[in-house]
Amino acid sequence: MKIPPVKGTRDFYPPDMALRNWLIDGWKRVSVRNGFEEYDGPIFEYLKMFQLKSGDEIVEQLFSFEDRGGRKLALRPEITPTLARMVNQQINSLPRPIKWFSVPRLCRAERPQRGRLREFFQWNIDIIGVDDVLADAEVIFCALDYLQEVGLTPDDIVVKISSREMLAAILLSIGIAEDELEPLYALLDKRSRLGEDTFEEMLTKQVSDENRRKKILELMNAESVEQIGDFVELSETAKESVDELQRLFELLDVVGVADFCVFDIGVVRGLAYYTGIVFEIYDKASQFRAIGGGGRFDDLLKQFGGPDMPATGFGIGDSVLEILLREKGLLDMVVPQKQLDYFVAFTDKQFFQKAIEIMAKLRRSGAAANFAYKSTTLSKQLKQASAQNAQKSIIIGRELSDNNELVIKDMATGEQELIELNKFFAELESESK
Amino acid sequence: MKIPPVKGTRDFYPPDMALRNWLIDGWKRVSVRNGFEEYDGPIFEYLKMFQLKSGDEIVEQLFSFEDRGGRKLALRPEITPTLARMVNQQINSLPRPIKWFSVPRLCRAERPQRGRLREFFQWNIDIIGVDDVLADAEVIFCALDYLQEVGLTPDDIVVKISSREMLAAILLSIGIAEDELEPLYALLDKRSRLGEDTFEEMLTKQVSDENRRKKILELMNAESVEQIGDFVELSETAKESVDELQRLFELLDVVGVADFCVFDIGVVRGLAYYTGIVFEIYDKASQFRAIGGGGRFDDLLKQFGGPDMPATGFGIGDSVLEILLREKGLLDMVVPQKQLDYFVAFTDKQFFQKAIEIMAKLRRSGAAANFAYKSTTLSKQLKQASAQNAQKSIIIGRELSDNNELVIKDMATGEQELIELNKFFAELESESK
Repeated sequence: MKIPPVKGTRDFYPPDMALRNWLIDGWKRVSVRNGFEEYDGPIFEYLKMFQLKSGDEIVEQLFSFEDRGGRKLALRPEITPTLARMVNQQINSLPRPIKWFSVPRLCRAERPQRGRLREFFQWNIDIIGVDDVLADAEVIFCALDYLQEVGLTPDDIVVKISSREMLAAILLSIGIAEDELEPLYALLDKRSRLGEDTFEEMLTKQVSDENRRKKILELMNAESVEQIGDFVELSETAKESVDELQRLFELLDVVGVADFCVFDIGVVRGLAYYTGIVFEIYDKASQFRAIGGGGRFDDLLKQFGGPDMPATGFGIGDSVLEILLREKGLLDMVVPQKQLDYFVAFTDKQFFQKAIEIMAKLRRSGAAANFAYKSTTLSKQLKQASAQNAQKSIIIGRELSDNNELVIKDMATGEQELIELNKFFAELESESK
Repeated sequence: MKIPPVKGTRDFYPPDMALRNWLIDGWKRVSVRNGFEEYDGPIFEYLKMFQLKSGDEIVEQLFSFEDRGGRKLALRPEITPTLARMVNQQINSLPRPIKWFSVPRLCRAERPQRGRLREFFQWNIDIIGVDDVLADAEVIFCALDYLQEVGLTPDDIVVKISSREMLAAILLSIGIAEDELEPLYALLDKRSRLGEDTFEEMLTKQVSDENRRKKILELMNAESVEQIGDFVELSETAKESVDELQRLFELLDVVGVADFCVFDIGVVRGLAYYTGIVFEIYDKASQFRAIGGGGRFDDLLKQFGGPDMPATGFGIGDSVLEILLREKGLLDMVVPQKQLDYFVAFTDKQFFQKAIEIMAKLRRSGAAANFAYKSTTLSKQLKQASAQNAQKSIIIGRELSDNNELVIKDMATGEQELIELNKFFAELESESK
């Protein structure tokens, strides 16, 4: 009976796994050097936790199920609710600011498409306890620190930045009601993916007043933070948000990533919990979905029963990133092939036992070693050594029984040398220290 | 609104995560030096895949759910079925023998108990394509290579080894019918957990013939492979299995792990797919559940629609292992604390911008660096540096604006030195190469 994998999931054969490890190890390394500590939560949580404060889109994509006690559970589609839950649980003992990162496996019941899978990995970093826009600048820097390290330049990617706080202030000042904001965010977030006509049609449904509609459409044309004032008169709150955005761009310049960053008032983010600065990272050609995005979510901890505490962070998935890196030729040569330090071969069956004894000793000393399971000719064993990319072969034969010596064959040059057994292991142990 | 985590799952706060990473990194390192390559599959598969050939116990513990297309899916309770599926899919292109390892996150709908969680990590290694008992010896060696590396000795743990093939041959030879074998395995597997009386009572239900029952009870007293023949007359097949077990013990002696290994006819394994050598690893005091176990499953690939191909492997979970290591005091001091290379401080607000510029440059150069978000006094900043375990602090002040020099303070000794900015970064870059 042959059973296929579920559509939208991936099998990681060793070469795929090596690539996944390379990606994730990079995320981890950059997180640590940016001062973040790793955490993780369970892959399933109570269903209601995800329904509480995520966007509608994510709630629709939940894989939910019941345990035997009838509790309603769901696979995590994102880790931010878990982060809020965990931080709240230990809020009094955690040193602040809390700078945490995670690389959760996430599951969403989506229709699988290119760059959109039902199971994927996502790099998350978050700073909790800092309300200064400096923290927003830091998370954007951290994302770009990684993206630059893997070879992406301002010719390849762009970070589009806006502020939901500013957008809210402007929308309120032109007469949109408080409770109309959230559905309007959702629509504005989809704007670039809808056609212009469809967008206007849907906007008409949500905003009946023609004058307000016109102002929104105009506002969407602002190309810089400075231009905002040209389209609408700014309230005090709106001015503060504009100032904050300007300071963000200054800070991004100081830390050397300004050439990756642009203002884009069309960036709103789908998730319901964002409150201030929001950003999305795209390939420059806008060929693919967002590589990642994030922003400020100052109310989330409180909504999860915790204190009033500012927070900002981002998530970058592996699927779109991998597609982009491959397209840019940045994955060629980066992932190391399987490598073996030693292949232990023997000239005659009588040396087989000695061979596996030495193989075991090699492994204990930290060297990656293999051997042939079947007693075959030496030349067949050496072929296996080559097939497994062994750097060296150790040949066990008369030299060992007569003089306690190993024959070491360099598989690249073909050169052979003799070395006394104890001397060999003494050198190996001192190397691995 | 406060939402708790689901019972039987774990939150990994940074110290817990550091421990999990230490455990898993060890598994990975030892796997690689033993010649294994890493793979992984999806966390959910078709429900029927797990129902196909696992033991009843595992099937009862499935978390199952439906996707929006009504497909019946389940969270993986083990990875071996996925391994069989993946190997079968690429059977013609994979070089053999296939030596693969994985560290899957697994989910089981169990009643949570000490050492038994509803979500855990399991180290799996498997060798596919080798029928020689040498492969069984190798997987046992690999498990012990790791367990020894973390400090466990023959005083702490024991590998109990038997052969299901041998058990089958003996049971058949004393008159047990072929279709009675599987339920009998399940009962024998539970023997050590049941009381003697309960076991005999349940055995009576399964084996009505008193003579056969007596023989089974006698057989369970065999203390060595050699003794088996004293209890029952061995058929040809049984003799072959006994010889194979003896060869296994010889090989375990050659690779230097014999003092960890004993014969134990009571080891049967709960999973339905085992066919030959089986083993379980326990703490010597039998205080806890099995740390791990494994064995040969020569029929599984075929049952999953693939070729007739021998296979052997093991799984070791993280829960019991962690409890044991903690009890033995082997977790003290092993997990590194959060470490920061540099904390960037400034003497006056006017140097703040320069400070974050240097912080960004440090991170780009690969050094883990942090800074204070709020402009406070230098002494408060240095307190933060200590709280974050920074090895050194870099103090930005007049020295930089006047002479382009950094003040570097060693946080352990308190010593300070001056170094020219460009020289400092040139040295840092050359160190990281």
